[in-house]
Amino acid sequence: MLSRLYRALPNGTRASQNAALIVSRGYAIQTAGKPDRQHQWQLAVSTLAAVFAAGLGSLVLVQPETSHCEEAKLASAGQTQKSKPPLPEFHQEDIAKHNRKDSVWVTYKDGVYDVTEFLEMHPGGASRLMLAAGGAIDPFWAMYQQHQNDEIKSLLEGYRIGNLAGGQDMSQQVADPYSNEPKRHPALLVRQAKPFNAETPAELLTSKLYTPSDLFYVRNHLPVPLIDPAAYTLRIEGEGLRTIELSLKDLKTKFKRHTISATLQCAGNRRTEMQQLKDIKGTTWAAGAIGNAEWSGVNLKDVLEFAGLDDKIDTEAQHVQFEGLDSDMEGVCYGASIPIEKALFKGADVLLAYEMNGRPLSKDHGFPVRVIAPGIVGARNVKWLSRIITSKEESQSHWQQQDYKAFSPDTEADSVNWDSAPAIQEPNVTSAICEPCNDAAISSSGGTIPVKGFAYSGGGHAIIRVDVSADQGKSWSVAELSSVASRRSRAWSWTLWQADVPVPKDHQGSIEIICKATDNAYNTQPDNVAGVWNFRGVLNNAWHRVQVQLEE
Amino acid sequence: MLSRLYRALPNGTRASQNAALIVSRGYAIQTAGKPDRQHQWQLAVSTLAAVFAAGLGSLVLVQPETSHCEEAKLASAGQTQKSKPPLPEFHQEDIAKHNRKDSVWVTYKDGVYDVTEFLEMHPGGASRLMLAAGGAIDPFWAMYQQHQNDEIKSLLEGYRIGNLAGGQDMSQQVADPYSNEPKRHPALLVRQAKPFNAETPAELLTSKLYTPSDLFYVRNHLPVPLIDPAAYTLRIEGEGLRTIELSLKDLKTKFKRHTISATLQCAGNRRTEMQQLKDIKGTTWAAGAIGNAEWSGVNLKDVLEFAGLDDKIDTEAQHVQFEGLDSDMEGVCYGASIPIEKALFKGADVLLAYEMNGRPLSKDHGFPVRVIAPGIVGARNVKWLSRIITSKEESQSHWQQQDYKAFSPDTEADSVNWDSAPAIQEPNVTSAICEPCNDAAISSSGGTIPVKGFAYSGGGHAIIRVDVSADQGKSWSVAELSSVASRRSRAWSWTLWQADVPVPKDHQGSIEIICKATDNAYNTQPDNVAGVWNFRGVLNNAWHRVQVQLEE
Repeated sequence: MLSRLYRALPNGTRASQNAALIVSRGYAIQTAGKPDRQHQWQLAVSTLAAVFAAGLGSLVLVQPETSHCEEAKLASAGQTQKSKPPLPEFHQEDIAKHNRKDSVWVTYKDGVYDVTEFLEMHPGGASRLMLAAGGAIDPFWAMYQQHQNDEIKSLLEGYRIGNLAGGQDMSQQVADPYSNEPKRHPALLVRQAKPFNAETPAELLTSKLYTPSDLFYVRNHLPVPLIDPAAYTLRIEGEGLRTIELSLKDLKTKFKRHTISATLQCAGNRRTEMQQLKDIKGTTWAAGAIGNAEWSGVNLKDVLEFAGLDDKIDTEAQHVQFEGLDSDMEGVCYGASIPIEKALFKGADVLLAYEMNGRPLSKDHGFPVRVIAPGIVGARNVKWLSRIITSKEESQSHWQQQDYKAFSPDTEADSVNWDSAPAIQEPNVTSAICEPCNDAAISSSGGTIPVKGFAYSGGGHAIIRVDVSADQGKSWSVAELSSVASRRSRAWSWTLWQADVPVPKDHQGSIEIICKATDNAYNTQPDNVAGVWNFRGVLNNAWHRVQVQLEE
Repeated sequence: MLSRLYRALPNGTRASQNAALIVSRGYAIQTAGKPDRQHQWQLAVSTLAAVFAAGLGSLVLVQPETSHCEEAKLASAGQTQKSKPPLPEFHQEDIAKHNRKDSVWVTYKDGVYDVTEFLEMHPGGASRLMLAAGGAIDPFWAMYQQHQNDEIKSLLEGYRIGNLAGGQDMSQQVADPYSNEPKRHPALLVRQAKPFNAETPAELLTSKLYTPSDLFYVRNHLPVPLIDPAAYTLRIEGEGLRTIELSLKDLKTKFKRHTISATLQCAGNRRTEMQQLKDIKGTTWAAGAIGNAEWSGVNLKDVLEFAGLDDKIDTEAQHVQFEGLDSDMEGVCYGASIPIEKALFKGADVLLAYEMNGRPLSKDHGFPVRVIAPGIVGARNVKWLSRIITSKEESQSHWQQQDYKAFSPDTEADSVNWDSAPAIQEPNVTSAICEPCNDAAISSSGGTIPVKGFAYSGGGHAIIRVDVSADQGKSWSVAELSSVASRRSRAWSWTLWQADVPVPKDHQGSIEIICKATDNAYNTQPDNVAGVWNFRGVLNNAWHRVQVQLEE
C-alpha cells in the first residue's frame, strides 16, 4: 500500500507534464524549484518502464514508503516506446466504459491509457480531450498534429495502464485530414506543418508596406477546407436580423465594394521571447506572425443592415459571431466574435473580404470570403466564413473562451479561471526590429547602424513614434516613420520605420539594439518580457531586442 | 574684448537656466555632466554682482581669456537682489524699441533685462514672452505667479543690463488677478497657489469610488473667472452649424439631462517621479492629480444636432473646440479641442456638465458649465465654458499646440518640434499605490501587506487586471478590483483595487511595493520611468513604486 500523496501544483505546464511523465507506482518525483513548490505527486498509472522510456535524462525519484532516493538512469531523449510493455490487456468494450470525467481511458495505437489525472491539464481544454474518452485518440492526433512529437508521446506513455487486446490498432484506419492543403511559398518559415502555421522571414517584412500574399503569415487551426465557390453561401442571422443567405455573387453585386489597408497579427507573435524566459506551449513564433495587406470586399455594416439591423434601435445584439468552414471531426467549426460596436460605428471598416492585394483570397487566407476586422487581433478575422450571427453573448468557441486571453505572470495553466480575462480584441502597441537580425555581423565603421522594423497598435491607434537605442536605453534615436498618421483614429495599417543609431563609443564588439513604439494614446511597450509573461504566451509587446556583432 | 564663446546646448531645462543664471561678462560656466555636454556659454548680459545675488551656493567660474578658475563664493539661496547694481539707466521709451525677436528687453520692478537669448528657452513659449517685449513683465508675473520664486528671479537677474530711469516701478500699479479666488478645502495639497493647482492626498483617493468635489484635484491655468449665472451664455458655431447662443436655463430645460461617472486626470499626474530622474519644469504632482465623479448635464451631441449638425452628412468638421471664460490680460482664453468623432459616435458621452456629484459645479471645477469628455485627458475638459466651435482644424491654443504633448526622452525643450507629436487626447493606462504611502512603517507580522490604489486608462478602456509585487517583480499578486468591467468599451471611471501582498521572506527591513495595471486592449505600464521620461513631464505611467519599512 502506498503512502498518501498529493496532487501537485507545479509552476507551469512543462513542470506538470514532466512530472506526470516520470511518476510511476511506487515512486514520487522530487521536483526542483522553491521549497513551497516541492509537492509530492499523486501517483499516476504508468510503470517505471514507461518512465525509462520517456527519455528525460536522469531524475531523482523518491520511493515514498522508505524515502529512499535513487538516481534513475533514464534512457536518452528521443528513445520512445517500441515494444509492448508487460501490462494487462483490455478490450475495446472495456475501454469504452471509461468515458466520464471521473475515469477517462483512451487508446493510442496498441496502448491503453488512463488520462483522468491529465484531463484538467490538457492545453486544449478538458472538453476536447473528453471527445476521445473511451476510444481512440488516433484520429484526433491526425487532426491536431501538434501532438505528434516525442515529448507528448512520452507524456502519454506515462499514463499507460495496458495494451489493446487482439492487436487492434486504430492508427491505420485514420485518413489524413490534411491531404488537401495548398502549396505554400518555400520562403515561409514553417512553425507547424499540420495545421499549417508559418511566418514571414523578418528581413522580408519591412521591404514593402504591403506584404505579398504568398509571403503573408498563415495561422490555421484546422485543415484548410475544400470550398466550391459556385456552391458557397454565407448565412446571416441572429438578434435583430431576418435570416438570409448570400452567394458569393450576391456579395459581389448587391453591395458596395470597399478597399482598406489593414494589418493582421497573431496574438502569439513574438512568443519565442516569452518561451526563452519560461516554457510555454504554443507555436514558436518569432516576430513574423504579422503582415499588412490591401483587402477588398463588402462592409459588414452594409450586410447587417441589408439583413434588417437598425442601428438607430437599441437592439439586444452586443456581439457579431463568425463561423468558418474549417471544422474538426465532430463538425465543430472555428469560431470567434467581435463587439458589435466595432462593426457599426461611423467609419467602421469591418469587411467581408474576397480579395487580398487585388486578387481573390488564396486558400490559406480564407477563400472565398473572410472577415477583416481591422484593429482587432488575427484570431477574430475568421477565414472561410460560413455564418454570421448577431447575439447577446460573444462566441462560445474554444478560441474565444479558453484561448487568446492573457493572464498575470503567476497565473498557471492548470488553475486558471478563463472567465477572469476578456477575449483579446484590440491588441496592444508593439514593434520589432527586422533588420539587422539577431546575431548579425554589422560594420561599425560608419559610426551608425541602420535599423529597420515595424510598429503597430490595435483599435485604430496610430503609431506616433518609435525610439531605438544601442546603449541599453541610455539614449534613444527617434526613427523615421513610413507614414505620419498621428491624428488618425482609424490607423489600421502598421507603420514601417528606420533609424540610424549611433554606435556606442564603449562597445565591446557585441551590442543589443532595442526598439519601442508609442501610439496616439501614448501607450508604449513595457521594458521587459517578465512583467507581461503569461502561460499562453500571447501579446508579448516588451521592448524588442536584437544582439549584433560589430566589426570594424 | 572677450573670446568668442558658443551658445550652450545643455541637457534639460534646469541646466540651461542655472547656467544662464550665473554667466556674466568675463565669465563662462563650467557645466557638470558628460564631456560632450561641457559647452561654454555665449555670455549673457548680467554682471558678476547679479551672479552673486543668484544665491546658488558655490560654482566654478572660468574667465575665458585666461582660463583662470576661481571658486566663486555665491551668497546663500534665497538672498535676492536688494539694491540697484551699478548699471546704465534706460528710459521707458528706449526699452520700448526692443520689442522684436532679435532684441527683446523687458523691465521688472526697477530692472532692465535683455532676454533675447532666453526667448526660445522660455517654458511658456517664445510667443508668450514676446507679449511683454519692450515693456514691463510685472503684470504678466502677477497673472502667472509660477514666476514668483527666487530661482526664476535670479535667472532674470542674469540678464540684467541696466536700471529703469526715474525710479519707475510698474509693480505697484498691478492689480492682483487672483483677488477673487474661492476658498479651498484645507486638506488639498497645494502645488501652486496662483494659478491654483492642488491635488488630493493619496490616502483620501481610494476611500470612495467618487472623489468628494471639494477634495477633487484642481488644475487651473489662469485666475478663476467671476461669472454671473443669470447672464451666462454659451455660443455654439462653426462648420455645419448655425450659430446659436444658449443660456444656462436653455441648457437645463431644452435638452435631456444625462449623468455619467467619469475620471479626470491631469496629464502631469505622477510628474514628480520624472522630476526625480531629471529636472522638469511643471507642477510637482505626486499621484493625486486624478479623481472620479458623477457628472450631470447635457450631451454635446444633442447640442450640436440642435445647432444643425447632421451626423449623416460628412461635414468638414473634424474637431470640436472649446473656449473657457478664464483668460489672460490680453483676453486670450484657455482653449482646447477634441476629435469630433469622440462627440458623435453612438454612445458618445461627452457632456456639457453643470453638476458634479449631484450639486452645481463649484467655482474651481468650472461653474456654471464645463466640458466632461470622458476617457480624454483633463486638459481638454474645458471649464467655465463660453464657446464651442466645430472646425476643420484643432484648437490653435498654446495648450493644444505647445503643451500637453510628450516626446522621446532625448528630445529637448529648446529644440523640440511641437508639431511632431499629437496633442494628448486619450491618456495611457496607469495605476498607483495610494496605501501604504512612501516611507510608511508597516507591520509584517501578518505575513501580507494590504495595498490599495487606483487604475485608469483613457479612451473608455476598462482595467482588466492590476498586479502587485513586493519582490521586485519576481512574483505578482493579482489585485481585487472594485468593478469587473472587462468587456465594456465605455469604461470612463477609474478602477479602485486592493491586494494582500506576501511579505518577501528575505526582506532586509525595507521593501519596494510595485503595481501595474492592464487594460482591455492588453496595454500595460512600462517598467521604468526612464523610457517614458519627457521634458514636459507628462503621462508618466511607469510601474508605480513605494518604499515601505517593515516592522515585526
